[in-house]
Amino acid sequence: MGDPAGIGPEITVKALADGKLYEKCRPVVYGSADILEMAAAYERMPPVRIKRIGNAGEADFSPGVINVIHVADLVKTDENGHPIFPRGRVSKEAGEAGLAYVLKVIEAAKAGEVDAAVTNPVNKEAVNLAGHPFSGHTEVFAEQTGTKRYTMMLAHGSLRVVHVSTHVSLREACDRVTKENVLEKIRIADDACRRLGIDRPKVAVAGLNPHAGENGMFGREEIEEIRPAVEEARALGIHADGPVPPDTVFSKAAGGMYDIVVAMYHDQGHIPMKVLGFTYNEKEKKWNSVSGVNVTLGLPIIRTSVDHGTAYDQVGNPDVCESSLVNAIEYAVMLASDRE
Amino acid sequence: MGDPAGIGPEITVKALADGKLYEKCRPVVYGSADILEMAAAYERMPPVRIKRIGNAGEADFSPGVINVIHVADLVKTDENGHPIFPRGRVSKEAGEAGLAYVLKVIEAAKAGEVDAAVTNPVNKEAVNLAGHPFSGHTEVFAEQTGTKRYTMMLAHGSLRVVHVSTHVSLREACDRVTKENVLEKIRIADDACRRLGIDRPKVAVAGLNPHAGENGMFGREEIEEIRPAVEEARALGIHADGPVPPDTVFSKAAGGMYDIVVAMYHDQGHIPMKVLGFTYNEKEKKWNSVSGVNVTLGLPIIRTSVDHGTAYDQVGNPDVCESSLVNAIEYAVMLASDRE
Repeated sequence: MGDPAGIGPEITVKALADGKLYEKCRPVVYGSADILEMAAAYERMPPVRIKRIGNAGEADFSPGVINVIHVADLVKTDENGHPIFPRGRVSKEAGEAGLAYVLKVIEAAKAGEVDAAVTNPVNKEAVNLAGHPFSGHTEVFAEQTGTKRYTMMLAHGSLRVVHVSTHVSLREACDRVTKENVLEKIRIADDACRRLGIDRPKVAVAGLNPHAGENGMFGREEIEEIRPAVEEARALGIHADGPVPPDTVFSKAAGGMYDIVVAMYHDQGHIPMKVLGFTYNEKEKKWNSVSGVNVTLGLPIIRTSVDHGTAYDQVGNPDVCESSLVNAIEYAVMLASDRE
Repeated sequence: MGDPAGIGPEITVKALADGKLYEKCRPVVYGSADILEMAAAYERMPPVRIKRIGNAGEADFSPGVINVIHVADLVKTDENGHPIFPRGRVSKEAGEAGLAYVLKVIEAAKAGEVDAAVTNPVNKEAVNLAGHPFSGHTEVFAEQTGTKRYTMMLAHGSLRVVHVSTHVSLREACDRVTKENVLEKIRIADDACRRLGIDRPKVAVAGLNPHAGENGMFGREEIEEIRPAVEEARALGIHADGPVPPDTVFSKAAGGMYDIVVAMYHDQGHIPMKVLGFTYNEKEKKWNSVSGVNVTLGLPIIRTSVDHGTAYDQVGNPDVCESSLVNAIEYAVMLASDRE
């Protein structure tokens, strides 16, 4: 359910109100039934029934019913048992609750009670306020499953991206473009596509420099690191292509030439994803659409996530966009289907 | 008209066949009437009449008429006077002709015979084969007008971008992010928008590093160079904002939050432009749509250009896309209207 003070509860109600999702999977929410009921009562929300369950066996997967495994409500309640916490704001109560929901989902996934975990956003500051050192959801999944090496894949429609590096400066990102690192990400990209049911994945490897270096005129990483990695990947039987000029590789991939792109640095991959998935509306000063999925590769359990934050300023906005959550659920279903 | 062996002649015929353009401007083609007639005879081309004129005074701006100032046909002709040259291939004849057309347009613009110049693509290799040292159209415009400092602006719809650096390695691009360079580009960006008739342009200045450095955690250029440049621009009365995280700034600008983005390096600006403007179709192995405009800022004459190359492999394809040329003409008209 994510941070109870963010948009997680609302987009959960909106996403699960669509009966079509129930044809593909049996979704169960880990969170707070009270808070979901509050969210369902917001203006212009679709009609749903919130069903409080103790375990997945008690669930009713009829369209319109949202099944909630009620994780201990860590937020304060008033005399009628209704939760009191500041909606749309950072608070330690919301941080504590958001983290508790995630830990419970991970436990369920490890025990095989659920086939995949999908996460709504939590707020880093809120979780820290609650007294838990926390840098992100993904790190909690890694720690709780004893995972050392993992990679984020971004996906939007048929465009998928993995990155050679993410949260480092652009100068350090240049240093990380080594044959070894690029080859590792090509293998991860190929494997991720196979898990999604793609038979012989076509992996594009982006260049680092403009025009992929233009034969060494604008940088030599393509010649010294990227091309050798592509050649070694091919020798391993991977259908890799590159270095491809960075400014057209994403249009080519979105159009179907490639199944996945290995991006050389954070913004090389994030810019096209957000340009395609995020639509901003200046007149109403809000994001009209926020779609895209974040998949954590390398964990022993399946985990996908929305591609945005808690968006506190959007709480209570009836137009809040659930696309990213729907995409994340659909991706989790695809990955889980392949595993069966 | 661009390289006669490329898609220039065809997209010219397609673009000018639309009478609506004649309501905004009086277009005259500098090129070869024979080659335009050949292009107009290709499969599924719109009906047009090619009118050979000696100067703009003789032109007939009725819809459906394409006026051509016939620049000496440098390609060989057969006994009937029809041009013979390899269509869809690099040749010195086509290179020679493409360059001759451009030189003639620049001469006309300098003499005030035309209000703006719009260029179709030429092929660098072809022009070099013809014996002319040549690195691009833009350099010819600069040389012929004695211009030392000029900047490329990319535009697609309401998204406009200028770059702090373009054809240098990504490592060198990091070095070029200095307060002085960033401030210069902010001023150019502001001025370009005013010339387009935008009253108080909102200029976004992108960060260099992921999350715009996240307060120095992923690089310090934002703190040491970019923010001081933004502050100085504001002191000069420019409505500048930044450093803005690079992965969402383009969605914000495309949605109307900003009129122009100052990008820190080539691909930061080119990736979003091409993701939005270029649509690839894997089934037919071709680009469905190629739109976007390249505007050269800083010249004493107005010059816009298509945002793609000669596309030799598309010659004769009835679906070849003229959007970028139409956009380039419309931008030239906007800039020329402001100047009057």
